[in-house]
Amino acid sequence: MKKLNWGMIGGGEGSQIGPAHRLGAQADGHFAFVAGALDHRPEVGRDYAQRLGIAADRAYGDWAEMLAGERGREDRVDLVTVATPNATHFEITKAFLEAGFHVLCEKPMTMTVEEGEEIVRVAARTGRLCAVNYCYSAYPMVRQARAMVRTGDIGRVRLVVTNFSHGHHGDATDADNPRVRWRYDPAMAGVSGQFADCGIHALHMASFICDDEVETLSADFASTIPSRVLEDDAMVNFRLSRGTVGRLWTSSVAIGRQHGFDIQVFGETGGLRWASEQPNQLIYTPVGGRTQIMEKGEAGLYADAKRLSRVAIAHPEGFPMAVANIYCDLADAIRGQLRDGLPLAASGVRSMAAVHGAVASAKAGGAWLDARPPMFR
Amino acid sequence: MKKLNWGMIGGGEGSQIGPAHRLGAQADGHFAFVAGALDHRPEVGRDYAQRLGIAADRAYGDWAEMLAGERGREDRVDLVTVATPNATHFEITKAFLEAGFHVLCEKPMTMTVEEGEEIVRVAARTGRLCAVNYCYSAYPMVRQARAMVRTGDIGRVRLVVTNFSHGHHGDATDADNPRVRWRYDPAMAGVSGQFADCGIHALHMASFICDDEVETLSADFASTIPSRVLEDDAMVNFRLSRGTVGRLWTSSVAIGRQHGFDIQVFGETGGLRWASEQPNQLIYTPVGGRTQIMEKGEAGLYADAKRLSRVAIAHPEGFPMAVANIYCDLADAIRGQLRDGLPLAASGVRSMAAVHGAVASAKAGGAWLDARPPMFR
Amino acid sequence: MKKLNWGMIGGGEGSQIGPAHRLGAQADGHFAFVAGALDHRPEVGRDYAQRLGIAADRAYGDWAEMLAGERGREDRVDLVTVATPNATHFEITKAFLEAGFHVLCEKPMTMTVEEGEEIVRVAARTGRLCAVNYCYSAYPMVRQARAMVRTGDIGRVRLVVTNFSHGHHGDATDADNPRVRWRYDPAMAGVSGQFADCGIHALHMASFICDDEVETLSADFASTIPSRVLEDDAMVNFRLSRGTVGRLWTSSVAIGRQHGFDIQVFGETGGLRWASEQPNQLIYTPVGGRTQIMEKGEAGLYADAKRLSRVAIAHPEGFPMAVANIYCDLADAIRGQLRDGLPLAASGVRSMAAVHGAVASAKAGGAWLDARPPMFR
Amino acid sequence: MKKLNWGMIGGGEGSQIGPAHRLGAQADGHFAFVAGALDHRPEVGRDYAQRLGIAADRAYGDWAEMLAGERGREDRVDLVTVATPNATHFEITKAFLEAGFHVLCEKPMTMTVEEGEEIVRVAARTGRLCAVNYCYSAYPMVRQARAMVRTGDIGRVRLVVTNFSHGHHGDATDADNPRVRWRYDPAMAGVSGQFADCGIHALHMASFICDDEVETLSADFASTIPSRVLEDDAMVNFRLSRGTVGRLWTSSVAIGRQHGFDIQVFGETGGLRWASEQPNQLIYTPVGGRTQIMEKGEAGLYADAKRLSRVAIAHPEGFPMAVANIYCDLADAIRGQLRDGLPLAASGVRSMAAVHGAVASAKAGGAWLDARPPMFR
Repeated sequence: MKKLNWGMIGGGEGSQIGPAHRLGAQADGHFAFVAGALDHRPEVGRDYAQRLGIAADRAYGDWAEMLAGERGREDRVDLVTVATPNATHFEITKAFLEAGFHVLCEKPMTMTVEEGEEIVRVAARTGRLCAVNYCYSAYPMVRQARAMVRTGDIGRVRLVVTNFSHGHHGDATDADNPRVRWRYDPAMAGVSGQFADCGIHALHMASFICDDEVETLSADFASTIPSRVLEDDAMVNFRLSRGTVGRLWTSSVAIGRQHGFDIQVFGETGGLRWASEQPNQLIYTPVGGRTQIMEKGEAGLYADAKRLSRVAIAHPEGFPMAVANIYCDLADAIRGQLRDGLPLAASGVRSMAAVHGAVASAKAGGAWLDARPPMFR
Repeated sequence: MKKLNWGMIGGGEGSQIGPAHRLGAQADGHFAFVAGALDHRPEVGRDYAQRLGIAADRAYGDWAEMLAGERGREDRVDLVTVATPNATHFEITKAFLEAGFHVLCEKPMTMTVEEGEEIVRVAARTGRLCAVNYCYSAYPMVRQARAMVRTGDIGRVRLVVTNFSHGHHGDATDADNPRVRWRYDPAMAGVSGQFADCGIHALHMASFICDDEVETLSADFASTIPSRVLEDDAMVNFRLSRGTVGRLWTSSVAIGRQHGFDIQVFGETGGLRWASEQPNQLIYTPVGGRTQIMEKGEAGLYADAKRLSRVAIAHPEGFPMAVANIYCDLADAIRGQLRDGLPLAASGVRSMAAVHGAVASAKAGGAWLDARPPMFR
Repeated sequence: MKKLNWGMIGGGEGSQIGPAHRLGAQADGHFAFVAGALDHRPEVGRDYAQRLGIAADRAYGDWAEMLAGERGREDRVDLVTVATPNATHFEITKAFLEAGFHVLCEKPMTMTVEEGEEIVRVAARTGRLCAVNYCYSAYPMVRQARAMVRTGDIGRVRLVVTNFSHGHHGDATDADNPRVRWRYDPAMAGVSGQFADCGIHALHMASFICDDEVETLSADFASTIPSRVLEDDAMVNFRLSRGTVGRLWTSSVAIGRQHGFDIQVFGETGGLRWASEQPNQLIYTPVGGRTQIMEKGEAGLYADAKRLSRVAIAHPEGFPMAVANIYCDLADAIRGQLRDGLPLAASGVRSMAAVHGAVASAKAGGAWLDARPPMFR
Repeated sequence: MKKLNWGMIGGGEGSQIGPAHRLGAQADGHFAFVAGALDHRPEVGRDYAQRLGIAADRAYGDWAEMLAGERGREDRVDLVTVATPNATHFEITKAFLEAGFHVLCEKPMTMTVEEGEEIVRVAARTGRLCAVNYCYSAYPMVRQARAMVRTGDIGRVRLVVTNFSHGHHGDATDADNPRVRWRYDPAMAGVSGQFADCGIHALHMASFICDDEVETLSADFASTIPSRVLEDDAMVNFRLSRGTVGRLWTSSVAIGRQHGFDIQVFGETGGLRWASEQPNQLIYTPVGGRTQIMEKGEAGLYADAKRLSRVAIAHPEGFPMAVANIYCDLADAIRGQLRDGLPLAASGVRSMAAVHGAVASAKAGGAWLDARPPMFR
């Protein structure tokens, strides 16, 4: 099968997310990395792109140059990944969609709900894919959990409880470190700190596994380090459309928690538990029965869990392979087979509505508010 | 050292809590079990008491008979444990305190805040001990956590997160089982179900380790099994008096969680984690450092953690020994040395105020309310 | 039910094992602690016994005095626990058995195989119980494992793998500490160090769960700290009488392992795993199926696992309660109901034969030797 | 940097190891996959290679054709991976080395010690790399362990204990399944079953982390399923050249263990523990101190652990990335920087000597034998 062409905007030398995308796109052989505008400093970006093996004429200085360069080519990129600073996602994503490119956008997809709705509309109008990198949802055992819920293996879901709480911003003496500080500064991060950064992964995961959407929420935000304007700890209670009760705790001052992302789903006839630090197991307890350890690669998993795993049972597959699974789904989609589970722009705008809803609720003393974007009410 | 005399009300044959109290009182040799009114059926109780080795004249038919019988004896019991149905705690406890007995009351100490305040006043007036069986607080590594917080080992506490969530009432087909049903029936359980049953252990633990008191809270209650009037799942956000942010989740429908009681405490310079199912370890992470596993029995623990442990490092001590630690502290207190950490009536009334506060907050859509008993405002 | 009378030899103030026996004997109310010769210093022992509540005339100066004092009493002790230094077990145990007392002897029961066989014969002749404190075998979930094997739940047992490896003697700078040194000094410890100290618990456990006996073994011993004459690390391969392959590793220099006692049993149709640091769970995997977590207190356990548990599922019961279970079985045996599973003198002598066999095998470069006492060949 | 050219022999459609190599070679962008002889059925292999994107003229029917085709090209492959059935490794590897290609050979490198020594000599003579895929040694935290040992962080190593025991061949009803059966059939597997299959990974790991070599060993082999000629369970005691005591258990009938590969290293001043199912943590206990959890990505790791990790702390990296690390080291080596830790032919022949030594020892009742290849004695 011919490789698809892929390009990247952002993700320059030294970035965290750049290598994950390059691994993810190339590992399974679906994409050839042929174009990039990798750095906000044009020369630095051009140089780095060439060191990564990109031809000089496709090593661009900025995204506009890349758009201009690629749109005219016969061998233009099939997919563009946008991994630039958050505030630029909207403009770049919109421009590439309108020029007929498929886009994978890093989260958060936009800064406002309005922008998010605009992306949804542009994607619909152009018929291009706009995916959002909710990569945790692509772990095989997360897909297994979703399939179990859909199949009814745990009955109607009563309750979903998720945490994404780490301690990496818990050192007050490090709070002025620019790589930390911007996250809690409204001028750079927008209306929300930790909830927008990590909480929305957890909220997406809750919707994803329950195969349902958030309707209302009530939030409690705290800035536990006094110099911070935005929250570094948040609790969000929510309700899904079919009545499932949701609870989400996110923190960046939970010293001792490393990645700290887990989810528990409790239905009428069983419970499930998954944690991102041991992603190859799914813990399942049928009501009245014993807790069982399900393993990636075991016999009898649902199709998606099988399809998105590469090596044998108990050979762990980690974060880079989860990102690669997003690219597998994208390759299939570009080739015409849209897989259930690929997170699209609708998920991106729902996250933004939840962020803005949670901020408003926290300001209103925990009042329950509608968390849906107007277009989905 | 002469043994103290001990009697028990409730805890009859087949009860869960009876054996734990008898083990707890007798294991370390502090108390001789000499009197009891063990069952609501007088003859059954008298018979069972005698089978447990109690003399016929101290095997009572009910608590009033026991009060009458014991108050006049020279060798009267030094301590009475009240392990009767919740709604009777107030009357019995009050009567024994007023007659000059020390009392250990099962939780919840009372059904209303007013009753709780009355118990506090009676205990103060009579100079008798009224302890409440928050036995989890007597695990050695919980005492260690409290001592670490007090000593400043993790700095000012920013955040405390605790869960007491199990799945043992998650089977809807079992919901009408009388042993389950009463807990969610206001006629029998009062204003709250799961929060009053398990949540108050967690809330007490948060206060206990942080050495601080709950001031305000905001609650979200849910009855996930429709036939239930009272909540089987609750989230309570709270604030302690020194500004610590608190989060508490309690559930009885979390299928797959067995005991499900854990607590995480995050301060400026470190984090702690403890779980009731592995009670002999305390997980500690200094800010910027590695997570360390502290073990009951390791060198260098604080005095209380050392004092309340019996066997060598890594020989687990479990729930019966935690209850026994409450009795160790009670024996010391009766003999004149009141130990820090023994939970007294003030803790009991604070729990009741939190229960009533949480119920009111949940009804008011999560409004933040004062959670203190009037006497402590 | 009338309490039985109990006395103890050894286990004085500051000893590790003394409190465990006193807790174990008294916790469930089966035994009254009425006599003792607790210390090798007569006055110290008498004083400590009285402080523990023993009457002056039964607070003995040494074991011979206790034997003389108790044998003539109408209310003589029903059971004597021998918790003195290892080299004295034989003499004391034999004397009390011959005087008609039941005995619980600490392990190792004797120093030689000949002494062990003599104890077996004396117990048979006098009709008295001689139990050995293989207390780990009394954990509820260990009894469950044994019952599962017997019932055929995992089929014929192919393989049993057990470790008892800790790191508490791994500090060479502490090796001359007298409390450590004696264990590796043949003058005090006999022919074996770590294998005789901890390994025999593991070997007993293997036999116990498999309900079979060791026939042959091959050993590799090492003294990893050069000043030690006896081994501080040993590997013993063995075969049970029905062909089960056994593997046992024991070490005292495994720095980082705390208690480090676990066992895995693999049969034709399933596998089991138990660890002393999480004693309330038994991990079970049916062949071709998922790993399941069995919990003490869950529905459907075999009778012994049920009988020897006191508190509800997921309320941990630890080491003191395991010792208490030995005393429960002893109380039943004294009252006429000999429970399967109570470890008796035959187990004690088998351990001694295994110790001497392993020492000989290690000296002979791992030669396979008969590990049975002559009386059981 | 220009990509290197890479080809593969074996690893056809449906094989387990093929995808791991393709991921490993391509993930970091070091190698372009340009040639292959992927299947023992020429047409099937040619077809599959082309479906994977290989040009028709480099989609070969067998290894000899590939050797002939590649040796003459200017753009010939820089590296050939040999992932064919074990008995063919020697011939293919030797042929490619002699033709001037670098080779990565799957384990076992050869079937005999003599063949292994021949490969070592050929590699030396030709100056070509012959690496062996001991991929577990390329996990970042394994490299960290090796660096800690070398740096002296745990002092002289006294003891190394490793297990590679799974249960995937424990079902007797599946024993005749051809994919299982060949492993225990001397006609196909050679002299050893489970030890040659999994045990040598563990033995290599022991040498690797201890930075030392096995000198002598004593083995106990068992065929727990009667129809098997070769062992499905083995215990091997060994000694490294500097006196370290080694213990290795490997099994394929340990039902309930999934991957089951772990290693513990105990030195004079500390202990280490690593397990392949949680490969991103290294557990470290300094003597007299607390157990600490070291995390891939934490600050202060040694250079190799840092270099071979791609994503942030607590984002798990799994088996495919470990294989990719072997390819990273190979790319560096081909480009002129030979990294410490890349497993070469010397490791391959040592493994074969250990296999043959263990077989002989087991036959000789556990006799201690020299486990070194003659060339390294």
